[in-house]
Amino acid sequence: MTATRQQERSDATRARLMAATVDCLVERGWSGTTTTVVAQRAGVSRGAQLHHYPTREELVLAAVAHLGAARFADARQRAAALGPGRTAAVLDMLADLHTGPLFRAMLELWVAARTDDALRAAVVPLEAEVGRETHRLTVELLGADESRPGVRAAIQQTLDLVRGLGVSGLLSDDSVRRRHVLADWAEHLDTRLEA
Amino acid sequence: MTATRQQERSDATRARLMAATVDCLVERGWSGTTTTVVAQRAGVSRGAQLHHYPTREELVLAAVAHLGAARFADARQRAAALGPGRTAAVLDMLADLHTGPLFRAMLELWVAARTDDALRAAVVPLEAEVGRETHRLTVELLGADESRPGVRAAIQQTLDLVRGLGVSGLLSDDSVRRRHVLADWAEHLDTRLEA
Repeated sequence: MTATRQQERSDATRARLMAATVDCLVERGWSGTTTTVVAQRAGVSRGAQLHHYPTREELVLAAVAHLGAARFADARQRAAALGPGRTAAVLDMLADLHTGPLFRAMLELWVAARTDDALRAAVVPLEAEVGRETHRLTVELLGADESRPGVRAAIQQTLDLVRGLGVSGLLSDDSVRRRHVLADWAEHLDTRLEA
Repeated sequence: MTATRQQERSDATRARLMAATVDCLVERGWSGTTTTVVAQRAGVSRGAQLHHYPTREELVLAAVAHLGAARFADARQRAAALGPGRTAAVLDMLADLHTGPLFRAMLELWVAARTDDALRAAVVPLEAEVGRETHRLTVELLGADESRPGVRAAIQQTLDLVRGLGVSGLLSDDSVRRRHVLADWAEHLDTRLEA
């Protein structure tokens, strides 16, 4: 096998492990996401899995970081095509991010890390990085100028709001209420960004 | 033992079980909150525990409902003493509710219920009830008139915002940022409640 071929196989194995890990976190939660279950689901041998990700923590953190990068790239691509009514569309995208697999997988980690010191040490830097990246993305997509008074606070409130909406939609369909809340927020946010 | 005496002992047993259950949820999470651990912590026999709360779900749901009632009563009492700058003080109280034991215990249940159908069936009505009660409390404490345009949306945004802040503060001390975010929101909220 050539070096290139080997690299391709290695990349494919990692990609399968990443996808299987996120699926597991979303469907079974942190407690159900063991390395054995993930390896089976990905169709990857235990040996190969351990070679790429020696511990459960490394596997899960890599999977969530990988998903985050993919979702952020996707959001930037979708945003490039947005026309007028941009603020409402950006809020919809943020709400999608916070009701989808990325938020649910991260919430599993945050809640598990609350009562697990080893996991917490690994999750805190990832949470900070995803938080910063989400903030940057939001500023960019909204074309917000944070040097103007009140704009940074408005962006932070927007992100805490969608985070809260993510929690509100965990157990039941909250989409109708969410749409109303965000439509109203879009109007006020436009005023605050332009003020 | 007289009937009154027996009732008093029974009430005391239940109170100890409620307190131990919440402590367990906050310290060890849902997976660490077993009936055995709670009975030991409360200093209550397994028989007495099973008599009052036959299942783990009943025990945990009763404990969270009980804590919610206590916290809401406490918030109403504190609010009665508030003078000017009421909105900011009410937001602080809501933030306290969403960074304290009630929110953390409920979040454990929500996240566990996401991947556990039996628990979900029990938690959904409790979540709805606590949500309604929190909304009612907020309207009451802010003296908000929801028949006026935009006021209901502003109250809902306030509650989603503090819920998001609760999640943001799970793993690290977010209190400085939270204070800034809420101070700014208090101004906007005042404008919207009076508009």
